Amino acid sequence: MADIIKVADSSEMTLETVRDSLIRQEDTIIFSLIERAKYPINVGAYDKTKTAIPECSDSLVEFIVKETEATHAKCGRYENPEEHPFFPDGLPTSLVPAFNYPKILHPVAGSINVNSTIWEVYFTQLLPLITVPGDDGNYASTAVSDLACLQALSRRIHYGKFVAEVKFKDAPQEYESPIRSQDRDALMKLLRVKKRVAKKTMLFGQEVSLGDNYDEKKLKIDPAVVSRLYEEWVMPLTKLVEVEYLLRRLD
Amino acid sequence: MADIIKVADSSEMTLETVRDSLIRQEDTIIFSLIERAKYPINVGAYDKTKTAIPECSDSLVEFIVKETEATHAKCGRYENPEEHPFFPDGLPTSLVPAFNYPKILHPVAGSINVNSTIWEVYFTQLLPLITVPGDDGNYASTAVSDLACLQALSRRIHYGKFVAEVKFKDAPQEYESPIRSQDRDALMKLLRVKKRVAKKTMLFGQEVSLGDNYDEKKLKIDPAVVSRLYEEWVMPLTKLVEVEYLLRRLD
Repeated sequence: MADIIKVADSSEMTLETVRDSLIRQEDTIIFSLIERAKYPINVGAYDKTKTAIPECSDSLVEFIVKETEATHAKCGRYENPEEHPFFPDGLPTSLVPAFNYPKILHPVAGSINVNSTIWEVYFTQLLPLITVPGDDGNYASTAVSDLACLQALSRRIHYGKFVAEVKFKDAPQEYESPIRSQDRDALMKLLRVKKRVAKKTMLFGQEVSLGDNYDEKKLKIDPAVVSRLYEEWVMPLTKLVEVEYLLRRLD
Repeated sequence: MADIIKVADSSEMTLETVRDSLIRQEDTIIFSLIERAKYPINVGAYDKTKTAIPECSDSLVEFIVKETEATHAKCGRYENPEEHPFFPDGLPTSLVPAFNYPKILHPVAGSINVNSTIWEVYFTQLLPLITVPGDDGNYASTAVSDLACLQALSRRIHYGKFVAEVKFKDAPQEYESPIRSQDRDALMKLLRVKKRVAKKTMLFGQEVSLGDNYDEKKLKIDPAVVSRLYEEWVMPLTKLVEVEYLLRRLD
């Protein structure tokens, strides 16, 4: 009934389990985008002059993301190698007992965080595509929805570290030479990501009618946008993470 | 492309717009449950002895919900009459300029909050039905998923206030007598909620395969559980909110 994201140990993690996780994470991204698309663009959440927090120069969404990440950091969220904060500077340390996450990745993994790029792409490129103009006042809920999208995208894109590790383990001899010569292009060519995203959006995003007739005009989010999101941003950024990881894999 | 939850003004809000909102909110609930069901039960998130926060007697999930609600309160989330905190005591006041929400509800609406019941039902009855046993260590992410479920359920159930208001406005003379006599049973009989939930879960929760064959064994969440959630909890609790609201509608 329920799927479990298993934190597999190194010996268990295969391209198959990685692929299963990526498929489940696609669901999360699509769900979060559909949720965000319920609200109009709501610029009040991003305009620093409109909803300025006293004694704070952040926009509402920055304020919510920073405060939420501080809370999550106290709860150990970022001890998990799958999670990456958007504002890592000055995060509080975890207050809860450490969970013994299996050591799958090379230690350099901890130094790779492309969230500033994800943030930029999300707000400047993706958000205008999935929302309609307008202002319904739900700025806090809107910003919380943004955070869910950002976290889902970040988790998926940084999962490239695990993808790269499994691919490397599978054929270390193929990767060794381009890593030694720090050849990004050669590494990129070695890496491929599969997708089945546009189809999934068709299925998840539609209105359910009693007659079960799929009306393409009533889709809640444009499958072409999600497809483009994957083609233009998720896959290239995942590959970037994979390459960054592999470049340091033999350090 | 994108749906908008319109904060309609009183004259715009009809049973039709209320029903549209309820249908969209069903999506949110089902999405959030599917997301939570990805993790095993993860008792560490709820066991106060297992992940005790220093100088704090809360479980991890209580800690995350309280801290998150404090952040959201500062951003004005609970100024929105559709939003209700789980821990209203001592919440900070909003730091952002007030949004002029249309005055749709009778002022008594502010005094109705059934979140303590929702909390109890969610953790003791619903969670064991949608999760498998196990512990993958993702306590912080698990608790964040719980919060998303709780917020979606709370929003949907408290939307009963708007449902009740629209029904009341539609036929005030029918409600007046049972309100004057404070007759709960008579009010309950006047209220009905429709559903289309089990079917929707069938559609959203399935694995997408390239062959488009719906394999019932691969559903991520049991449609019967969601149906039961609605039958046993969401609808009765929504009706409870409706009745509580109507009982004070003529104050």
